[in-house]
Order: sequence, then structure tokens, then C-alpha cells
Amino acid sequence: MVLIPLLAAAMASFAQNPDSATLRRLSDDILWNGVCYDNLRVLTKTIGHRLSGSPAADKAVAWGKKAMEAAGADRVWLQPVDVPLWIRGKETLKVQLDGHLQPIPMLSLGNTEGTGGKTLEREIVCVPDLAAFEKLEEDQVRDKIIFFNYKFRQDIVNTFEGYGDAVKYRWVALNKAAGKHAAAVIIRSVSTGADDVPHTGASRYDDGVAHIPAVAIGNFSADKLAAACAKGQPKAQLVSNCSMKGTKRSYNVIGELKGATLPNEIIVVGGHLDSWDVGEGAHDDGAGCVQSIEVLRALKASGKRPRRTIRAVLFMNEENGAKGGVAYADSARTAGEKHILAMESDAGGFSPRGIGLEMPEPLKQKIRSWAPLLLPYGVYDFTQEEGGIDIGPLRKQGVPLAGLLPDSQRYFDLHHSRNDVFEAISHRELKLGACTMMAIVWLADQYL
Amino acid sequence: MVLIPLLAAAMASFAQNPDSATLRRLSDDILWNGVCYDNLRVLTKTIGHRLSGSPAADKAVAWGKKAMEAAGADRVWLQPVDVPLWIRGKETLKVQLDGHLQPIPMLSLGNTEGTGGKTLEREIVCVPDLAAFEKLEEDQVRDKIIFFNYKFRQDIVNTFEGYGDAVKYRWVALNKAAGKHAAAVIIRSVSTGADDVPHTGASRYDDGVAHIPAVAIGNFSADKLAAACAKGQPKAQLVSNCSMKGTKRSYNVIGELKGATLPNEIIVVGGHLDSWDVGEGAHDDGAGCVQSIEVLRALKASGKRPRRTIRAVLFMNEENGAKGGVAYADSARTAGEKHILAMESDAGGFSPRGIGLEMPEPLKQKIRSWAPLLLPYGVYDFTQEEGGIDIGPLRKQGVPLAGLLPDSQRYFDLHHSRNDVFEAISHRELKLGACTMMAIVWLADQYL
Repeated sequence: MVLIPLLAAAMASFAQNPDSATLRRLSDDILWNGVCYDNLRVLTKTIGHRLSGSPAADKAVAWGKKAMEAAGADRVWLQPVDVPLWIRGKETLKVQLDGHLQPIPMLSLGNTEGTGGKTLEREIVCVPDLAAFEKLEEDQVRDKIIFFNYKFRQDIVNTFEGYGDAVKYRWVALNKAAGKHAAAVIIRSVSTGADDVPHTGASRYDDGVAHIPAVAIGNFSADKLAAACAKGQPKAQLVSNCSMKGTKRSYNVIGELKGATLPNEIIVVGGHLDSWDVGEGAHDDGAGCVQSIEVLRALKASGKRPRRTIRAVLFMNEENGAKGGVAYADSARTAGEKHILAMESDAGGFSPRGIGLEMPEPLKQKIRSWAPLLLPYGVYDFTQEEGGIDIGPLRKQGVPLAGLLPDSQRYFDLHHSRNDVFEAISHRELKLGACTMMAIVWLADQYL
Repeated sequence: MVLIPLLAAAMASFAQNPDSATLRRLSDDILWNGVCYDNLRVLTKTIGHRLSGSPAADKAVAWGKKAMEAAGADRVWLQPVDVPLWIRGKETLKVQLDGHLQPIPMLSLGNTEGTGGKTLEREIVCVPDLAAFEKLEEDQVRDKIIFFNYKFRQDIVNTFEGYGDAVKYRWVALNKAAGKHAAAVIIRSVSTGADDVPHTGASRYDDGVAHIPAVAIGNFSADKLAAACAKGQPKAQLVSNCSMKGTKRSYNVIGELKGATLPNEIIVVGGHLDSWDVGEGAHDDGAGCVQSIEVLRALKASGKRPRRTIRAVLFMNEENGAKGGVAYADSARTAGEKHILAMESDAGGFSPRGIGLEMPEPLKQKIRSWAPLLLPYGVYDFTQEEGGIDIGPLRKQGVPLAGLLPDSQRYFDLHHSRNDVFEAISHRELKLGACTMMAIVWLADQYL
């Protein structure tokens, strides 16, 4: 095994190369003078969370346009997107712990229907997982509240893999339960948190199933509820008001630097502007938005115009409909635009570790050949096949997709919860992520 | 460049190997059942900061002994260490901003002498760095307060390198200033923080120089003071009471699992138990202590006794004297103990990225050959030569030294400041660091 020294040697030789020096200059500017952290402070602290269709989302669109202009974009425009409007309203959940009904922190799952403000009181049936639920007869389930107590797998080091495993309880559990005529569903939050914070997130009713309420509770409450279940069949009392309220007009925010010699070839960097309706959407995905704007700013500030057109896109509605990504891809196809690469940052504003690559093998090889230029920024993992939700619809047009892969350890402690706030952001980690996106965009502009 | 695919291929083949499976089982236990995060909560929240010689440090020693016993150590003992006793006392700094003397957040540098409770009011001479100071005549400096406004280099990605660059202002500035008969020194904190938090840390008077007061201020205050300096020569008013108060008896806490077949060969894992007298010493270095205890616990819980003796050491007095490391090495030499490896965690409880190696090249090669076993835990960097302060004194005895290298982006935002608290710790990052130490210890036990 001599891989590591080889990599080090390759790095040393690359350190002399002019691309390395250019990336160093651009990164130094971001690390010293970058505005992404300040931009994020404004977005999170003056606007806060911004669910699609909300007044805050409208404010975020206006903020995004201004921030793009301040970054020096040649052109900034709003791209119409019709988004679903889901409203949470007031909600409470009480569960019978130690014999008494006690309120516990909870959040209805996004896109679900509540109890219409009525009190739903039922016995709880606890199951550890879907397999156990499948074994129950309809009689055991009918008109009960089903508690799916599936734990996020702490042993999986890459928490996005753990998320992939656990998130089916957010998507599938309510449909399985509705299929057996349950009254409602409680899930243990899809969360790595060592706390009692509930995490929301999108769900969806399958065609034909009843629109039963579905809520998430925090890990500590889930532990307590499981203990209560082990002793008997506790009751729960749910009152909720969430509901879908049709659609609303909103916008993607797009800013670009026109390419000097190949203006019709486009490289996209993006994140999503909407967030869930709790916390401040700092890591998810204010971070991706301000990093994308930072890439524009740094390239503009360098004084050297890129060959291709560089476009930063703040997508609307990733969280509960993903309509912004579809609108962007539709527009690109209609306009016959040629996209060289689309890169997304939607995995948190943490220290970068890798770039996900969803593209043909020769292109992957090309991008992997840049590894020594990225290692000085802590980026070493090019093995994952991961673009992103919002750039995903460009796949059909054959656009190569890349995704920023930051350290994943903290993301699912705060994802879709009240803990996803500005204070959970490290200014240096956020900026290093921006440096990584900038490096990929710059190299793609030169060499793809 | 085909390094990354090569590494991935090597990983895939290693995934089948029995060592990989053993490390996976041990890590799964730490990630699901590890006690390091709970241990750290107790240390930080019931004891808090614990400067050498303080009553809190005594409590920390007692806590460490109990925690080692609870982890299942075969034997736990206290090793006497005589430590310096430095006491801060009350202190305030006012500086003339916008014409008026205004109090700003400050901390005297550790081991320095204060004003003895008297008010020291002098004009401030501002310099950007040591080179600028060297150019000043003694007349320009005499009886003034010198403000060294050197900024931590945000452009250096590895913040430990940036620290190495900036920390000379904590060690050298007061001696240079005293040499030209300045009255006192203010430094911009050795901090990456985007905030106004002052950071303390050890300093030292050179032989023969006057023991002038030296204090650190936060980055925002430093910006304001620099702006005031640009307009004139502002005054400062310092009152402080810090002082060295002789020495005190304290202890290293040592716990071990006796080796099954080579009990006289020892592998050390350690961190330091003392902290600065602000914050809670969570990352610096409660993390290293609880990770070291976790290694013992996980190995014991596995039911399979190691071949060699595994020893966890909680060193006393790393911060302002490093007497614990010296005491340990002295004892090892006196007892004629044979140490196979010593590994330290004193760079924060963040996601692991590498292992520093301070040992002969063939041993480095050996440890680098384990890289594919460590990559699944996010550990890829084996290029740095870095053991640690506390294990450093074992170097003279030819002991191979290793240091855990976590992600460095957040460390110098909180290091030696009130922000180094339990809430700044991620339970998963802390545990992954413990998994990494456990892996190195286990592999060293098998193969070194």
C-alpha cells in the first residue's frame, strides 16, 4: 500500500502548477473576503424559515435577487414556479406516559393532512419497523394510532446512507398504516440527534389511501413511548390543523456571469431557497444558496471573465414538491440551452470531503484527475454517485451532475428541525464548501 | 491520475477482511453504545473548566478515576504531578474608542502577571506585526501599551498551521515589548472566530525581561481598536490580578487493560484532563479524555483481551506547564516500561480526518498500510508528522507517537475561550474520533 505517499507526491507536484495557484488565489479571496456567511446571516436572521408559498419565501426571492446583484452578476432574473402551499397551523400531541396524557414535542410530516382541529384520541400500537407492522392483522391496527419506532442507524458512518435507510418511515409508514385503516401514524423522527427534537420533512399519500394524520416525535420521547408500550397500550391524543391549500406562484432566482468566449455553454451551481417551516433553513439549504452566490462573486472579483457562462440558481420548492428543479430543466430544454455541468450544494454547510459524480465514466475520470488540486481543501472522495434533487431533472438532457459532499456527521441532528439555525454554521466550513464549488466550476470552465 | 479508484478498489477488497469486520464490530458498539458523550457531559457540566491546581482539577481527577473504573479497567491509579498554580482573579480592560474609555471583553494570557489590582492607564501603540514592532525605537515604545494586531490567517486551510503562525504573538510579543520597556501588551486573540470572544492560552517570560501584563482581546474589538489607532493614539486602562502562586500536587489518571500474552508491552491512548479557566474544556481536551476511556471500554466490552497492555492516560497540566507528560515519561523510563505506541487526541472532538505519525519511516509505512481499514471512518490523511504535547516526552525513549487529526475548521473559533463548551460537541463526531483511536490501538496491538 503506497497510495497515500503517492497522493502526497502528486499534490506536491501540483502545488507548482498554475491551476493550483489560480485556485489558491480565488480561495484566499473567499476565505478572507467571502460574503457567504454574512449573506446567510441576513437570510436566516431577517427572513428565517421560508416554506414554499409562504410570505417568507417571497421575501427570500427578493433577497436572493439583491444578493446576486450585489455579487456582480451580469444578469439576474426570476423564473416562475408554481408550488404547492402546505400550512401547518397549530398542533399538539399528548401521549400516555406513566399513566397520564402528557404533551410531547412533535411536528406533523410535511404535505400531510391533520385532524382538522378535532381531537383524535386512540390507543397506540407500537412496532419496531415495517416488517413487524406487516405481520399485524387489520383488526389489530384498525382505528389505532401506529407508532413506528424505527431508529436511525447510528452505526452507518455516512449519515446520508443512514437517512436513505430510515427515511422510508417518513414516506411509506403512513401509507402502510392507512392501507390497514389505522387512524394516524407517529414516527420516531428521521434524526441522529441525541435529544428530543422532532424533525419534519415531506411525505406523500399513495393514490387511493385515506389521508390519515402522520407526525414525528423526537428521539427521547420515542424512547419513553417505547417504554410505555412495553408495559401496556398507551393512548395518544392528537390535535392538528395542517393541510394542503392548493398552489401558489413562486420563483427560482437565477444570476449569471456571461462567458467570454463560449457564452452559450452554461455551468450551473445551485442550492435551494425554500426550507421547512421550522428553524431557519441554515444548513438546509441557505448554505447552498449563499455558496452558489459566492462562486459568482469570487469569479467576478477575480477580474478574469470565465470562458463559459456561469449561472447560480436558487431553486424554489425542493422540500415539498421539487417544482423549481423541474421548471429550470424545462426552461433549459425549451430554450435549447447547452449545459456543460450542473453542481448542487444541498447536504449542509459543513467541511467539504468529496464531490459526488453522476455522469459517464470518462467524465468522472476527468474530474478525478483534478483530485490533487482539491486535496489541499480537504476534498478526497470522488467515489459517490450523487448529484442532487434540484439538478436531477437535467439528467434527462444528458447534463453531467455533481454534488458537494460535506462531512455528514451533524446534518441529521438538525435537518428539518428547529435546530437548523445560523448558529449551527461554521463560517470557515461554509466558506471551504464555497471554495470547493468554485474550484469545480473553474476547472470545468477550463477543461470540460 | 487513478489514485482514487485504486483506493476505492483497495477498500472494497479490505471490506471482506477479518480485521475490517472486527473494527466494524468495535466501532458499531462505540457508535450505538459508547459512553464518551455522556462522560463528557458529566465532566463539563458538573465540573466545568479545570485549570491545573484548581479545586475543579481535583474533582476532575476523582471523576477520571471513577470513569476508568466504570469502563472496566483492570487497574486504575493516580500518578503524582506537581503543577504550577496560576490564578486569574478579576480583570478589566477599557480602551478609548470614539474618544471614550469603553470596557471590552478580554482575558489575561495564562502564566502572566497582572497589574496587581492597580489601574494601569497608558497610550496605546498599535503595530500590525512583530516586524513593524522591531522597527520602532525604544522611545516610541517605552511605558506604552503595545497592541499587536496580527490576524490569524484565514487563508490557511489547516488551522493548526495558521495557529503555528499566529501563536508566536502569544509567546513572543510580551517579551519583545518588555525588552523595549513597554508597560503592557494587548494582542488580537489567536482565534479564527468571527466574533468578539477573547482567547487565553499559555505565555512565558524570557529570563531577565520585566513581567509586564499581557492580555488578549476578541477579533471584533481588535478591529475597532485598530480603527481607533488609525485616527490617533487611544488610551487603555487595565486592571488585573493574575499571578503565579507556586506549585501544587496534582495527578495523571491512568487506567489499563492488562495484555493477555504480552502484558509488558504497552500501548498508550491519552488526552489531557486540565483545561483553561474559561468555558468548559470540552474540545480542549475533555474530548481526548473521554475518547481514551472509550477505547478501554470498547476493548473490554468486546470480551477479547488485547495481546498487549492498553493504557488510557488522562494527563494533567498540558495547558500551562505540560508537567503531566513529563511525569508519565519519567515514570515509564524509571520503571523500564516498553511502549509500543503512544497516541494522543488533543485537537478537538471533531470528525477524524487523519493520523499524525512521528516515528521512523518503516513504521509509518506499516501504519499507512492500514489506510483502507480507516477510510470507511473518514480517515485518509497520513502525511502529517504530529504526535502531541503530552506524549512528546516519550520521544526521547524512542516511542513511536501518533496523533488524532480531526477536522480543524472550528477548533480555533473556540480554543481557550468561553465557547469551548459541551454544546459545541457533536456526539457522532466525538464517537468517530474514538472509533479511529480504537482502530489504531487494535491494529497496533495486532501488528506492530
